[in-house]
Amino acid sequence: MTLTEQKTPLVGIVMGSDSDLEKMAEAAKVLEDFEVPFEITISSAHRSPERTLAWTEKIKAAGGQVIIAGAGRAAHLAGVIAAHTTLPVIGVPVDGGPLNGVDALYATVQMPPGIPVGTMAIGSGGARNAGIYAVQILALQYPELEAKLQAYKTKMSDGVAEKAARLQEVGYQNY
Amino acid sequence: MTLTEQKTPLVGIVMGSDSDLEKMAEAAKVLEDFEVPFEITISSAHRSPERTLAWTEKIKAAGGQVIIAGAGRAAHLAGVIAAHTTLPVIGVPVDGGPLNGVDALYATVQMPPGIPVGTMAIGSGGARNAGIYAVQILALQYPELEAKLQAYKTKMSDGVAEKAARLQEVGYQNY
Amino acid sequence: MTLTEQKTPLVGIVMGSDSDLEKMAEAAKVLEDFEVPFEITISSAHRSPERTLAWTEKIKAAGGQVIIAGAGRAAHLAGVIAAHTTLPVIGVPVDGGPLNGVDALYATVQMPPGIPVGTMAIGSGGARNAGIYAVQILALQYPELEAKLQAYKTKMSDGVAEKAARLQEVGYQNY
Amino acid sequence: MTLTEQKTPLVGIVMGSDSDLEKMAEAAKVLEDFEVPFEITISSAHRSPERTLAWTEKIKAAGGQVIIAGAGRAAHLAGVIAAHTTLPVIGVPVDGGPLNGVDALYATVQMPPGIPVGTMAIGSGGARNAGIYAVQILALQYPELEAKLQAYKTKMSDGVAEKAARLQEVGYQNY
Amino acid sequence: MTLTEQKTPLVGIVMGSDSDLEKMAEAAKVLEDFEVPFEITISSAHRSPERTLAWTEKIKAAGGQVIIAGAGRAAHLAGVIAAHTTLPVIGVPVDGGPLNGVDALYATVQMPPGIPVGTMAIGSGGARNAGIYAVQILALQYPELEAKLQAYKTKMSDGVAEKAARLQEVGYQNY
Amino acid sequence: MTLTEQKTPLVGIVMGSDSDLEKMAEAAKVLEDFEVPFEITISSAHRSPERTLAWTEKIKAAGGQVIIAGAGRAAHLAGVIAAHTTLPVIGVPVDGGPLNGVDALYATVQMPPGIPVGTMAIGSGGARNAGIYAVQILALQYPELEAKLQAYKTKMSDGVAEKAARLQEVGYQNY
Amino acid sequence: MTLTEQKTPLVGIVMGSDSDLEKMAEAAKVLEDFEVPFEITISSAHRSPERTLAWTEKIKAAGGQVIIAGAGRAAHLAGVIAAHTTLPVIGVPVDGGPLNGVDALYATVQMPPGIPVGTMAIGSGGARNAGIYAVQILALQYPELEAKLQAYKTKMSDGVAEKAARLQEVGYQNY
Amino acid sequence: MTLTEQKTPLVGIVMGSDSDLEKMAEAAKVLEDFEVPFEITISSAHRSPERTLAWTEKIKAAGGQVIIAGAGRAAHLAGVIAAHTTLPVIGVPVDGGPLNGVDALYATVQMPPGIPVGTMAIGSGGARNAGIYAVQILALQYPELEAKLQAYKTKMSDGVAEKAARLQEVGYQNY
Repeated sequence: MTLTEQKTPLVGIVMGSDSDLEKMAEAAKVLEDFEVPFEITISSAHRSPERTLAWTEKIKAAGGQVIIAGAGRAAHLAGVIAAHTTLPVIGVPVDGGPLNGVDALYATVQMPPGIPVGTMAIGSGGARNAGIYAVQILALQYPELEAKLQAYKTKMSDGVAEKAARLQEVGYQNY
Repeated sequence: MTLTEQKTPLVGIVMGSDSDLEKMAEAAKVLEDFEVPFEITISSAHRSPERTLAWTEKIKAAGGQVIIAGAGRAAHLAGVIAAHTTLPVIGVPVDGGPLNGVDALYATVQMPPGIPVGTMAIGSGGARNAGIYAVQILALQYPELEAKLQAYKTKMSDGVAEKAARLQEVGYQNY
Repeated sequence: MTLTEQKTPLVGIVMGSDSDLEKMAEAAKVLEDFEVPFEITISSAHRSPERTLAWTEKIKAAGGQVIIAGAGRAAHLAGVIAAHTTLPVIGVPVDGGPLNGVDALYATVQMPPGIPVGTMAIGSGGARNAGIYAVQILALQYPELEAKLQAYKTKMSDGVAEKAARLQEVGYQNY
Repeated sequence: MTLTEQKTPLVGIVMGSDSDLEKMAEAAKVLEDFEVPFEITISSAHRSPERTLAWTEKIKAAGGQVIIAGAGRAAHLAGVIAAHTTLPVIGVPVDGGPLNGVDALYATVQMPPGIPVGTMAIGSGGARNAGIYAVQILALQYPELEAKLQAYKTKMSDGVAEKAARLQEVGYQNY
Repeated sequence: MTLTEQKTPLVGIVMGSDSDLEKMAEAAKVLEDFEVPFEITISSAHRSPERTLAWTEKIKAAGGQVIIAGAGRAAHLAGVIAAHTTLPVIGVPVDGGPLNGVDALYATVQMPPGIPVGTMAIGSGGARNAGIYAVQILALQYPELEAKLQAYKTKMSDGVAEKAARLQEVGYQNY
Repeated sequence: MTLTEQKTPLVGIVMGSDSDLEKMAEAAKVLEDFEVPFEITISSAHRSPERTLAWTEKIKAAGGQVIIAGAGRAAHLAGVIAAHTTLPVIGVPVDGGPLNGVDALYATVQMPPGIPVGTMAIGSGGARNAGIYAVQILALQYPELEAKLQAYKTKMSDGVAEKAARLQEVGYQNY
Repeated sequence: MTLTEQKTPLVGIVMGSDSDLEKMAEAAKVLEDFEVPFEITISSAHRSPERTLAWTEKIKAAGGQVIIAGAGRAAHLAGVIAAHTTLPVIGVPVDGGPLNGVDALYATVQMPPGIPVGTMAIGSGGARNAGIYAVQILALQYPELEAKLQAYKTKMSDGVAEKAARLQEVGYQNY
Repeated sequence: MTLTEQKTPLVGIVMGSDSDLEKMAEAAKVLEDFEVPFEITISSAHRSPERTLAWTEKIKAAGGQVIIAGAGRAAHLAGVIAAHTTLPVIGVPVDGGPLNGVDALYATVQMPPGIPVGTMAIGSGGARNAGIYAVQILALQYPELEAKLQAYKTKMSDGVAEKAARLQEVGYQNY
């Protein structure tokens, strides 16, 4: 089955609170750009634990292959999901509170042996990378994604070159 | 019902790994000293999540009133239990890994609004304090515990005074 | 005696400075929502130490059962109160200075063996949780609070489900 | 092609120095336990940069699907490899120096948008999890790995239950 | 009155626990070297709060002019004493627990406006400096101490020069 | 000589940059309130090292008894001055850069054995406390300052009581 | 060859993203002030790795003697360049993300043995210092730069003295 | 003049205490390996400030071109030297105290604008890199050093390749 024939979500995105949405939307945008079907929802490890587990199982049962989970502070969401599934879980520590996301980073990345969470950078940049990382995992099965990733890398490199060219042209005072 | 008539555990102590036992035993020793019935077990939020929830419910159903949960690194145990019970949960961040328990502290204390965990100091001193804090909560219902807490405070104060007296007597070089 | 018959404060809330009030008010709001009688005051461990101790004793003598103490920077308030009472003390590290509350967190949570402080998250979220934690402790004696806590948990869970439903309906770009 | 027919490495493990081997060996052990063919080598982002890139390309050309990279201090290895490949890269921050791996964690996880590294916990536990995470990614294509992961989760859960049973039997003083 | 006529303690040294004695003894040694009369005791802000205040008042009433207070973890001792006296208080954060004294440093130095504590470095070096700082304060009144401080500075400088000379003589491999 | 007869500065205040003035002015205000003569200047340990040493010697030669030094980032100012004088030096770590003053705190407080700096809290609150601490040191010689310090403590305590009374009167919602 | 005869760039400045330009421009301004020919560009260690290496080689081949590299977060740029050249590399950790540049500092300074990066302070001040440091290195060959550096130091010292004079004149309240 | 004709020290190495010697010796060993004449001494910014400045001037007057300064805790040594010379100063933060060198790192690297210190990694690895960095700076004038640096880079790369070959040969269990 090619990616374009795929109708059910391959990736599930979940965040602990709707206050995380602005940042976690970066993951969704990447998946849209790569035309990867996904589902996005809100569910808290602490305030709606049963819903979180039910959603996790539903995503897998429907053919989902990767889960992206973003949360702030004592960010247990990615770890709790990883405890209940064998799918690769990508964790995004969300900043926002007084500790600027260091708490969320430690609570996401320092998982005990046996239950890994592939952790991204803190904040919206990490959310965007979560989308790309999901695409990299899926590209192992969908060759069209591999081609798109190559194009994405080229585009990034070209973007840098263009900025460098403009900087050379106008000078650093006028950039 | 007086405390001595109480046969079922009033406090449940749980830790994420048996490597935490040496430290968490401090909580158990305090409860024994105060003659508070308790149950102690091992259960991981990540490696045995169903068991953790079943145990939490069992403790409450059996009349348990306080839960003490100790874990290290991305310490989700106390938070996951707090998500599933209305009993007061006392969290003990256990040190041991490269970050010396700062990760466990943040993952235990930085709980989101709605799901509190009463967090103690990192390590064995925090475990001992978890036992005392549980006794303080129970003392609101069991007057004999209130008397014992007063005696405990007096004993601590006397202990300091004795050490100070000895220091004065022998001098700081010979203490 | 039922909770509604209770006229004297069951909970004392104290903060080190009126600059902490906006955040500590979250604890008071929770207690109001749960119809738990409380008293709220300002008293500093450093600038008004005698007043702090006198208030602590007064709260207990009047039947108070839990004390919530919030302070910033070298936050000694909760610890100083815990040194003088056997009531359970809930500490709220208040952010605001250059260290964003890490100093207040360490000064509140790292209590020595013998004198526990049940520490909440830094800032207003921690203050709200302090209110809930006080209710959880009181619910061990007042069954009507236990019912309210269950309802509160259900309401939180429902709130997440509603947000998730809205997200599904309008899409993440329009949320 | 089934996993047992697979002869070339599906996973490449690389570390920046042979002083990281004791910790990174945990990743190799997991892959052996799951019977996943892998290649393990030493190559530094700084001391042997050409070798690092050549190896990265060789692994992919030979059919490798996941790269695990472990390094300490200013750990650039995972990021440099991720810059040169579209394969999912798993980063392991190795502790050992004066900063206990916080430097390696930040240098591994805080990748800029566009170049993700799925980061594990600091140290040997993180290395073990890197092996499991690689298996989770490969299990999306190899159903026999999915079954093994389920068995692994069950075994972990059973291990906790056995320890809990023993603790109940012998008591915490004799465990 | 000259310093040698002075029989009552000019400096009071207090520590929160006898486990701090090995480090705090450095302060006492300095005062002995400078022939400054002092008193040293153990008293905890948390376990013996009344004793702490009584001792503070006693020291001042007996003519004490400086107080040195050393404590670890949530180190409230110096701050609590400073709240109850107008004498200059010198605080020594003692290391020893999992956070290596950062907690004690923050809890000692981050005092709120109005109640200063002159804070020294973490650990035994800070304790030694506390002794010297007390001498510097007393030297404002006792000219013989000023002369001794000048000699102390010269001796330190000479000590460095001697080590440098020896290094030059024997070479760095044989030092 | 009484304090009012004193015309030359008893305290020297120095800061590393005029960008520190807004915060360091707090120290000057306190000294004005206590009617302690002082001199305030700008001098950098790095950009004007000779001027810094000359000023330090001048202050002492003119009868100065305490030096207050405030600086940010790699704050060497207090330490460099302490290396060149036997007067007690009070250090104020100034925040402002990306590390929020933690760098200035460490660079000020972690002085090696032999050269103490009495360090205050980070920022303007620390500057105010530096002024008070200087007064406490001078009060050992000037009894009128001791009386003012007692009054200052009473005023602080009264200020807290007044705020508490107002809070009780108007309620926390209307404060 | 004197500096004024020098037409090709002696210093290459590179930054990982044009969002770093505002801060890194400080380095360029210094070089302009000292009339040192330089080239400034944008190139990412991760998004344009080949371009980064090609530029590094080009700068050296054209007679460049020092490279200044600024980047944020997991700042690999300076280290990757240092791995590919024997020229002295000056690293500038750029702040901007949730960790305020601590991540960039660690990722820049904690280089493994064999591959040094001379690291400056975080942010725009560090960028300015990178320019000065490059001038200091070049001044070993170009005596006119040595004279300019002496003048620069004098100007800094004079600037402090002028500010101090103004402060003395107008008073701290009116500065 | 070629390097071999050079008899006076091109590099001055200074450390704040002989307890730093074991680590700072790494810088000396590198200079010996590269046959760069150097002088090594002990001098403290705080305990022997005059000696430190006199030595700094002597080194420059004798033709020295680079200064390496290593110190721990509130490490002012490199900054104080940089304030008094136009030579490039390389700073090495030495670990050893309770903060593991983070204090020394911040106190060395966070220099204010105008006075740069090229900072190396914490500890002995940073000391070794200081030696190499000094060689890189000198290689701009001494072509024989450039050739040696190329050989050094090749040797490092070959060393990695040999270890990798051995790992492949014996397997990770037997390495």
